[in-house]
Amino acid sequence: MSSLFTKIIKGEIPTYKIYENDRVFVFLDIYPISLGHTLIISKTEIDQWTDLPLEDYLAIQTVAQKIGNAIKKATNCKRIGQIVDGREIPHCHLHLIPLVDGQAINQKSEQKLIAAPTPQEFANLQSQIIKNLK
Amino acid sequence: MSSLFTKIIKGEIPTYKIYENDRVFVFLDIYPISLGHTLIISKTEIDQWTDLPLEDYLAIQTVAQKIGNAIKKATNCKRIGQIVDGREIPHCHLHLIPLVDGQAINQKSEQKLIAAPTPQEFANLQSQIIKNLK
Repeated sequence: MSSLFTKIIKGEIPTYKIYENDRVFVFLDIYPISLGHTLIISKTEIDQWTDLPLEDYLAIQTVAQKIGNAIKKATNCKRIGQIVDGREIPHCHLHLIPLVDGQAINQKSEQKLIAAPTPQEFANLQSQIIKNLK
Repeated sequence: MSSLFTKIIKGEIPTYKIYENDRVFVFLDIYPISLGHTLIISKTEIDQWTDLPLEDYLAIQTVAQKIGNAIKKATNCKRIGQIVDGREIPHCHLHLIPLVDGQAINQKSEQKLIAAPTPQEFANLQSQIIKNLK
């Protein structure tokens, strides 16, 4: 059975998509730790990042830097944090999380930092990040 | 003034070194969240990963996958977590953290998961990870 993320990639589940290429798919996390929290996933459905073919892994990371800078501009945050922990969904995913300086990253099961954005807020963020990618 | 990490790269501060090439330096975190917690740093002294030249950033990530797999074998953990948060030292560094399945990553300021290893335990870990790199 396809993972939740593969269903998202196939368009079977709607998302606020930011970017897509042959190897990766990027969208806003709907349970954000901070405003602009974004997920980058591999199109190859493999659980652990350490098991991904190197070219797929580096494709994620190449895109991560571009997306990270676009999120920084769109949200005016101080820096972008990263987490890979592989919990919940067995399909490799990288979290990009806008941070203020010196802020620790706490995962959402531990501490949810913001209330869920409205669909309009999500759509605004999506268009701001996409604009800053160009 | 050089960052703490640049001093480590230059050998001015001793570490349990795991690996080094032209662009990156890898060593055991002396305040580990879990046994095998390792830092990968860029030899270029730049604070934020989003500002690194792409080739330096991808050098970190290419090494990260190799080191991550060596840590997995050396520690028998279920998976390797990653964090970049940029706190404390303004010199880009990636944390590789051995995890059990489903475990959240909590940062060391929030929750230190293990007692400091002894020098002998650090040295054993160092040699086990290096052995598994080959």
